[in-house]
Amino acid sequence: MAIRIIGVDPGMARVGYGVVEREGAIVRAVAFGVIETEPGPLPDRLNTLYDRFWNLLETYRPDRAAVEQLFFGHNAPTALSVGQARGVVLLALARYGLPVLELKPAVVKQAVAGWGKADKVQVQRMVTRLLGLDAVPRPDDAADALAVAWCAVGHMDTRRTAP
Amino acid sequence: MAIRIIGVDPGMARVGYGVVEREGAIVRAVAFGVIETEPGPLPDRLNTLYDRFWNLLETYRPDRAAVEQLFFGHNAPTALSVGQARGVVLLALARYGLPVLELKPAVVKQAVAGWGKADKVQVQRMVTRLLGLDAVPRPDDAADALAVAWCAVGHMDTRRTAP
Repeated sequence: MAIRIIGVDPGMARVGYGVVEREGAIVRAVAFGVIETEPGPLPDRLNTLYDRFWNLLETYRPDRAAVEQLFFGHNAPTALSVGQARGVVLLALARYGLPVLELKPAVVKQAVAGWGKADKVQVQRMVTRLLGLDAVPRPDDAADALAVAWCAVGHMDTRRTAP
Repeated sequence: MAIRIIGVDPGMARVGYGVVEREGAIVRAVAFGVIETEPGPLPDRLNTLYDRFWNLLETYRPDRAAVEQLFFGHNAPTALSVGQARGVVLLALARYGLPVLELKPAVVKQAVAGWGKADKVQVQRMVTRLLGLDAVPRPDDAADALAVAWCAVGHMDTRRTAP
């Protein structure tokens, strides 16, 4: 039975998404891209993000979701801003009824590229290869979201084969 | 005609709210308190916050909303966490169709206590007096939210009397 996972890389101006499907040993990319919201009053922007993200869920009907856990060092204004978008994404996933896995960037890099400090290019190259894509997914946020989704597939495996 | 404003002081574990009503020259407190969410998976927690906040809107039917703009210095993890709750609150306000005013803490303090660097106790004492309450509203987040709502009433005045 095929299982679909949506991976999400949340940001304020753009939210990356990647949907992968696993059937037996095969994992393929179903869709990927970014949701962009136009500058404007913040409540309206978050509302647009919610609607567009919800539409994605209705279009691709994933069975599970994985969202990147973010770190900002000392950049509190960026953290607040991205947090607002991330809250809206998590809310949509909860209301849609999906189980959500939160994955640390180092865990995603480890799973996709083999080590937790792999750089962006290495991760993108590996995602392209692992999903059998013809070219590196663009933009970057979409490639990151596919990496998150791919990592989540691996987490499903670990859990299934655990004693 | 009476106008109702809901003020919000968002946090992750608790979100303060205060509803004030202005009729002519009189501004009175209609309700105040905090929404608390129990520890648990973040998506569920945000979903609970959304539902409880939405219930408040349906119960008190405000005409406008004001939400505190937050600053965290270098505390990015807290900013991310509070941002997630703030995003959910702003989303609910947008979906409920309310105009939202975002107010900086210094602006709220200036309006309520007379200067932008007033401390918490001064602000709480002034809110109590301005709204004719018998005692300082508790908990602190509820008092802060009432201060935000009271400040927003003043902003309405400024706009109405502007040339």
